[in-house]
Amino acid sequence: MSEPRLFDRAVIAGIGHTEFSKESGRSTLQLAAEASRAAIADSGLSPRDIDGMVTFTLDDNDELALMDNLGIPALSWTSRTPFGGGGAGAVIQHAVAAVGSGAASTVLVYRAFNERSERRFGQPEAASNVPGKVSYRPYGLDTPAKIYSLWWQRYMYENGATNEDFGRYSVVARTWAATNPNAWYYRRPITLQDHQQSRWIVEPILRLLDCCQESDGGVALVVTGAERAADLAQPAVRVAAATQGHLRGGDIRFDFHHPDLGHYPEAGLVAQRLWQASGLKPSDIQVAMIYENFSPIVFLQLESLGFCGRGEAKDFIAEGHIGPGGTIPVNTNGGLLGEAYIHGINNIIEGVRQLRGTAANQIEHVDNVVVASGRSAMILTRH
Amino acid sequence: MSEPRLFDRAVIAGIGHTEFSKESGRSTLQLAAEASRAAIADSGLSPRDIDGMVTFTLDDNDELALMDNLGIPALSWTSRTPFGGGGAGAVIQHAVAAVGSGAASTVLVYRAFNERSERRFGQPEAASNVPGKVSYRPYGLDTPAKIYSLWWQRYMYENGATNEDFGRYSVVARTWAATNPNAWYYRRPITLQDHQQSRWIVEPILRLLDCCQESDGGVALVVTGAERAADLAQPAVRVAAATQGHLRGGDIRFDFHHPDLGHYPEAGLVAQRLWQASGLKPSDIQVAMIYENFSPIVFLQLESLGFCGRGEAKDFIAEGHIGPGGTIPVNTNGGLLGEAYIHGINNIIEGVRQLRGTAANQIEHVDNVVVASGRSAMILTRH
Repeated sequence: MSEPRLFDRAVIAGIGHTEFSKESGRSTLQLAAEASRAAIADSGLSPRDIDGMVTFTLDDNDELALMDNLGIPALSWTSRTPFGGGGAGAVIQHAVAAVGSGAASTVLVYRAFNERSERRFGQPEAASNVPGKVSYRPYGLDTPAKIYSLWWQRYMYENGATNEDFGRYSVVARTWAATNPNAWYYRRPITLQDHQQSRWIVEPILRLLDCCQESDGGVALVVTGAERAADLAQPAVRVAAATQGHLRGGDIRFDFHHPDLGHYPEAGLVAQRLWQASGLKPSDIQVAMIYENFSPIVFLQLESLGFCGRGEAKDFIAEGHIGPGGTIPVNTNGGLLGEAYIHGINNIIEGVRQLRGTAANQIEHVDNVVVASGRSAMILTRH
Repeated sequence: MSEPRLFDRAVIAGIGHTEFSKESGRSTLQLAAEASRAAIADSGLSPRDIDGMVTFTLDDNDELALMDNLGIPALSWTSRTPFGGGGAGAVIQHAVAAVGSGAASTVLVYRAFNERSERRFGQPEAASNVPGKVSYRPYGLDTPAKIYSLWWQRYMYENGATNEDFGRYSVVARTWAATNPNAWYYRRPITLQDHQQSRWIVEPILRLLDCCQESDGGVALVVTGAERAADLAQPAVRVAAATQGHLRGGDIRFDFHHPDLGHYPEAGLVAQRLWQASGLKPSDIQVAMIYENFSPIVFLQLESLGFCGRGEAKDFIAEGHIGPGGTIPVNTNGGLLGEAYIHGINNIIEGVRQLRGTAANQIEHVDNVVVASGRSAMILTRH
C-alpha cells in the first residue's frame, strides 16, 4: 500500500501530571486542569490547539468545565472509554482514531480523581454499585480483591504459583519506585520478607503488599498529527498499535466465565493484535508497562504478551528478567503498586518518558514500549 | 489529494429498532439486544462481523452483556459519547473514526432505555443529580423544561416569537407522526388549537405539546467499511460529514453563559463544519432531522444550520417549508415529539430510511440528509 497506515498519522506530543498523594486537598477538576496544563505546556502547543478530549466513563470531570478552565476555545471530538482501568489503553486508541480520521487535530487525554480521599475503589461495595453482568455480593464477594482472587487461585493451582511468587513482583515494583521521585514509595523499597509479613487481604492469594495503592492525582497526554512532530517541544512518540480486546463470556473485573481459567484470554487477544498491527515481536520491546490492580495480574499479562510461556511468569520474575538490569524491565516507574494508582494512565506517560530518554529509571536504548491494561493496550515507538 | 477522505471509508449498513412505547415491559438490555439484532439482520451481516460498539455514557447496557446476548465473539473498539442527547450525532462520528482508522471493521451503535417506565428525564431532579457545571436547583430550576426556557425566552424576546409559533412546529411533527406506523402518535394529529389548549409547563414559553415524549425503546445502527457496500443487504448510506461542537463558556443543557443569547452557537459551529467538510450547502439537503427535547430548539437549529436567517424560523415554519410538501421537510418520522424520544438516534435511522427510499413519509429524490442534535450532527448521503 502506498498510503501510510492511519495510526502513523498521530503521535503523543506531551505528557503531564500532578503530584501523587493520599489527600490532594483540592477538587478532581483542579487535578485534571493541572495535569492537562502541564501536558499542553510539555508539548509546546497551546490550549488553543486542543480540539478533542478523551477520558474514562468513570471520570467525574466534565469536558466543558475542563475546557473553560484551560481556555480551550472549541472541541470537535469527545469520547469516553468504559471498563475502568481495563480501558486505560483505549484512551490512546480513541485519540489516534480521532486525529487519524480528521475528526480532531489535537486531542487532550485526561484522568483525575481523589481515589484515596474521596471514593475508594477497594472498599466493600453495596450490591447496587458493583459493575458488570453478575452480582457477586450475595456470595460475599464485595471487594475487587475478593472477586479477582478466585481467578488467581486457579492460576496458582494450575501453575504451582504461591503468594511468595507474587511477592517477587511487588519487590520489583517497590525497587523501581524507590528511585523514582514521583512515586509515593520513593526511597521506600521492600524486601520479600516485608511482603510475606504484610497482612492477608484474601488468604492465601493476596497480601496487603500485593495490592495497588489508593491515590489522588491527575495525568494527561496530548496526541496530535504526525506532521506536527518537527514543531513540538519534545521528541514525538509514535503509536505503532493500540487496540482493545473484549471477548464473549467475559466480565468487566474477572474472567472466570471462560472455560479455561488459568490465563487471560482478553490480554492474549490484545497481544495478538498488537504484534500483528505493529509487525513487532516481544523481543523487539525494551520496556513493558503493565497495569496491576494486584500483583498476580502482571503474571497473567507477561504470559499473554508472550514475554514468557504460560505458567512460566513465576520463574521469569524470579530469574530477574523484569527488574533493574533485566531483559524486559516492567513498570519502571514503580507501577500502580509503587508510583500511584491513576487508573493506569500514569503508566502511559512513563512509556513516553522511556522513549524520550527522560525516565527516572531510564533504560538504555529504548525503541519500543508496550503499555498494557489487560483488555486494552498499545505499543509506543520512537518517531 | 489522491487519497479518499477518511470519512468515505465507512458507511451505515443497517438499522433496527424495537417498538416505541410507554412501558416496554422488559429490560433495557433486552431492548438493546432486539434493536441490535434487527440492525445486524437488516445489514445482511452477522453478529460475528461486529468488532466495535458505540453508545452513550448514559446508556445502562454493558457492552459485554450485550455481546453475550447477540453472540458477538470479540470487540476491538468500544467508546461512549457524553452530553446525553447532545451527543447523539457523535455516535456515528465515533463509529466512522473507528472503521476509518482501522481500529474496527464493523461497529454496532446502540441506545436503549425505559425512559418512561423507569427513569423519567423530565422529572424534577435533586441538586446532586443535575449534570453540568452549575447547579440551578437553588433557583428553582429543577427540570430540563425550566432550565432551557430561560434561553428560549430570550429568543422569543429578540425575535418576537410566541408560544403559538412554537406550536406550529408541534403541529408539523404530529402531522408526520400521524402517518408513520412506528410513531407513538400514529393516526393522532393535532391542530394549533389543540396545542394552544394544552396546559402550560413553563408559562409563557412551553406548553405540554411543546415537550418531547417520554419513551421506552431501543434503536441500533451498523457502520462498516465502504468496501463492503456492494455486499450488503441494503443500499449503503455514506457519512459525508460528522462532527461535534463544544464551545468554551457553554454548558451541557443550555447556552446562557454565552454573551449573545438569542441563538445557538454550538449548533452554528457544527453546521459550519458540516458544510465545509462535505462541500454541500443547505440547498443541497432534502430532509433535515433535528433533535427536539422541546419545540423551540428546532427554531434555533434551523437558523444555525442556515435553512433560514436568524430570527426567521417562525415565518419559515408558518410558510410551510418544513411540513409535507415543504422545501425542507423536517423530522419526517414525527421527531421526538411525535415518534418517540430515543435520545435522538431514532432520527438517524429515519435519515437512513429517507436515503434508502423506505420511509413511511418518503420524500422524493433524497440525496442528502442532515441529522442534527445541537452540539453534534452529521450529513448522510447516497453511497
